[in-house]
Amino acid sequence: MKRTQFTAIALCLSLTGAMLASSCQKSNVIIVAEPVRPAGQTDALQLRCDPIPTVRVGFIGLGMRGPGAVNRFTYIDGVEIKAICDLEQYNLDRVQENLAKRQLPKADEYIGEEAWKQVCEREDIDLIYICTHWKLHTPIAVYAMEHGKHVAIEVPAARTIDECWQLVNTAEKTRKHCMQLENCCYDFFEMATLNMAQQGLLGEVVHVEGAYIHDLRDLNFNERLSSSESYQPGAGKVGEEEKVKRPGLKGYWDYWRLKENIEGNGNLYPTHGLGPICQILNIHRGDKMDYLVSLSTNQFNMTAYAKERFGEDSEQAKTTYNQGDMNTTLVKTAKGKSILIQHDVASPRPYSRIHLVSGTKGFAQKYPKRAIALEPHAHNALSPEKMDSLLKVYEHPIVQEVGEFAKTVGGHGGMDFIMDYRLIYCLRNGLPLDQDVYDAAEWSAITELSKISVANSSAPVKVPDFTRGSWDKLQGLQLAK
Amino acid sequence: MKRTQFTAIALCLSLTGAMLASSCQKSNVIIVAEPVRPAGQTDALQLRCDPIPTVRVGFIGLGMRGPGAVNRFTYIDGVEIKAICDLEQYNLDRVQENLAKRQLPKADEYIGEEAWKQVCEREDIDLIYICTHWKLHTPIAVYAMEHGKHVAIEVPAARTIDECWQLVNTAEKTRKHCMQLENCCYDFFEMATLNMAQQGLLGEVVHVEGAYIHDLRDLNFNERLSSSESYQPGAGKVGEEEKVKRPGLKGYWDYWRLKENIEGNGNLYPTHGLGPICQILNIHRGDKMDYLVSLSTNQFNMTAYAKERFGEDSEQAKTTYNQGDMNTTLVKTAKGKSILIQHDVASPRPYSRIHLVSGTKGFAQKYPKRAIALEPHAHNALSPEKMDSLLKVYEHPIVQEVGEFAKTVGGHGGMDFIMDYRLIYCLRNGLPLDQDVYDAAEWSAITELSKISVANSSAPVKVPDFTRGSWDKLQGLQLAK
Repeated sequence: MKRTQFTAIALCLSLTGAMLASSCQKSNVIIVAEPVRPAGQTDALQLRCDPIPTVRVGFIGLGMRGPGAVNRFTYIDGVEIKAICDLEQYNLDRVQENLAKRQLPKADEYIGEEAWKQVCEREDIDLIYICTHWKLHTPIAVYAMEHGKHVAIEVPAARTIDECWQLVNTAEKTRKHCMQLENCCYDFFEMATLNMAQQGLLGEVVHVEGAYIHDLRDLNFNERLSSSESYQPGAGKVGEEEKVKRPGLKGYWDYWRLKENIEGNGNLYPTHGLGPICQILNIHRGDKMDYLVSLSTNQFNMTAYAKERFGEDSEQAKTTYNQGDMNTTLVKTAKGKSILIQHDVASPRPYSRIHLVSGTKGFAQKYPKRAIALEPHAHNALSPEKMDSLLKVYEHPIVQEVGEFAKTVGGHGGMDFIMDYRLIYCLRNGLPLDQDVYDAAEWSAITELSKISVANSSAPVKVPDFTRGSWDKLQGLQLAK
Repeated sequence: MKRTQFTAIALCLSLTGAMLASSCQKSNVIIVAEPVRPAGQTDALQLRCDPIPTVRVGFIGLGMRGPGAVNRFTYIDGVEIKAICDLEQYNLDRVQENLAKRQLPKADEYIGEEAWKQVCEREDIDLIYICTHWKLHTPIAVYAMEHGKHVAIEVPAARTIDECWQLVNTAEKTRKHCMQLENCCYDFFEMATLNMAQQGLLGEVVHVEGAYIHDLRDLNFNERLSSSESYQPGAGKVGEEEKVKRPGLKGYWDYWRLKENIEGNGNLYPTHGLGPICQILNIHRGDKMDYLVSLSTNQFNMTAYAKERFGEDSEQAKTTYNQGDMNTTLVKTAKGKSILIQHDVASPRPYSRIHLVSGTKGFAQKYPKRAIALEPHAHNALSPEKMDSLLKVYEHPIVQEVGEFAKTVGGHGGMDFIMDYRLIYCLRNGLPLDQDVYDAAEWSAITELSKISVANSSAPVKVPDFTRGSWDKLQGLQLAK
């Protein structure tokens, strides 16, 4: 039987008027227009800026991830917490109380929809640390860089490909650091496997997997009470008991994350799984993502959950959630490696980021169970004892340096602290950051690229080269010392 | 930024002259021509044939899987082992010795390239059991059905879509059973999860995963000595010691499986992972595979291994192996579920078939670690003790019936025996078989469909409906009682 021939005409039009940076060499791959680099602008690879002895920081967004970030910064030398910004007085108070507890001066407070602009405009701030809901990540980061600030952005740094280019272009133009706060790159097992890969223990890495599988139905559907309802002066840290009394505090502001699921449909939150495995594959440091395909299931779980929790006739049960429960995206790299990345925040199942690394000499996997297998006995995983000794031998130098202290500070077991510590260390020493603006763009771009693929029956979509031709200029990831 | 528009013209030509059964409704999906059903032919769903009190069997292919199959049949009532067929006298002798040991009469022997035809032509045989290399599976099965025999075919039943249609058309025309011997459908955990899914414990199943991850480099590169070299009369069963003395016995006849890897590139061996999860999803029993995308890494491991074992300048090291190390295929079903299926026989890593089932009420996974998680506590897997009790409660009735005895006979821990037992039970009672010809076609077709996708930058490819419109006639899989 002969199969039907498939002929495609890919019209490589750049509808915004920007010139195409790459040609349509593959007829059945959807090409997203890549804007050419503005004249006089160069890449920001290995960007070094003047050392900053004391890094003055402004934190924007104190609802979910922000307070923990401020708290971690109170444990880092050479830092001054200058300003905090949020929509709710309660959130500001909570942070001020913690600063007092840590015997640090009050930070300047900013409150209101546009208040973040004032923080970015201050002359006495070096770094803007962004923990708002996703839609403000890029606008704030761009505004901050335009006003001479380095930026650290919670994941995902950008929601669209256009936003990714905004970050890249602004960072290249302003020569400011733009780091996505991908904390999972600093988790202990992930750092050990990075070290193993870089030292050749796993041979040439051929295939990797990552995921964000985290049942967020409860959190997404929780109401967050308005500040007047939820604000109780002096309530202090939100403990379990308080959560029960005021469940609204557990929800996202204005249901913003639920709305992302209504909007869907692709990998809405790719970076936690993707960051560590892209580092292992040396993405834009010798290899690059070439194209991807993405497939989502229909949506079943959000509706089923809403019916059970709010009733068959509730608004929640009748809402259309475009986001499919499970999204799986496959990426092929220029060097012929593959990346599998999953997203599922709606299915009842245990948490997993997978973190699987398969090479020509060995294998590692973190979820659902840590396992390492090495040639010539890779048929079987190492015993837990042997694995633990190996993990000790390959403990990453950065973890050796600060891992134990990080555990005492906390933040997802310590990885958040290591991330912040490294950010400040590099800024204070004028070093390139561990994660650059191209990482932020590449990892975040998966969201819209996967949406495009899903909307086109999983058709292949080319991944833009955000370095615009410099993806093999660096030979391997190097974390600055 | 607007993205480039993608325009595709899918030319739905049937180059063999067969009429297209489906239209090209999706412009960017590659459509494989579906031949219309020959006039006067009806589907073979739930096919029932006259009961056969004593099933007379001819076994073809005794190199790898065959001898174990014959041995298992010596433990099943109502069976007569009439004929055995192979290319090597040594293999025939080995089986005869085992029959003698089991105090059964000698089987008639057939030897030579075309000898299998004579077995199929015999009047006194009911069932042809095919354990040859893959390229002979469909030719023998078709010939056997044409000669009035039921057939049981080792996996994969077919290598191409054309062969899949040959099986379907021949089974529909001759009204003979055509069962693919997918033993993994009978493994204990898989059967328990099928039972859980069918009883609703997992809710609506949304996403499933399966795999064949098995490092076969050693086996693929091993030499199989010619019969004159390897034949030692009276050598009996091949034990570990003998394997060391005559390593050729461990290899495949004429390197046929290595050649499949040279030919590649897709999921060469999809059915072990796919069978159990397709049963859980009720494929062609209420749902069907709609389209797939498939992505392979480049090949790294075969060459690296060949260089190390045979030297840089060896023929093996210089051979081009088209098969990428890791192939991942994603399938979307008509009801909006997704199937992830992987194939990797070249990477050094532990064996895995994954077997993951994710539903609206619960979750199960077999590899790398058995885990079950249920609402409302699905965030955490059940403790091993609770899981074991649950597995006992949901033990499949067929396992309850024959599981313990199966373990004593063996064959991958017992599942092979359960499979043979069920095959013979259904034939003796005139019942539909557990796996029908459409299962064989659907599961096997993934090989060529994935190859087409891989060859087209992972473009989506429509999965043929081998039932030709009857995929939702049956409501759910029922294993006949």
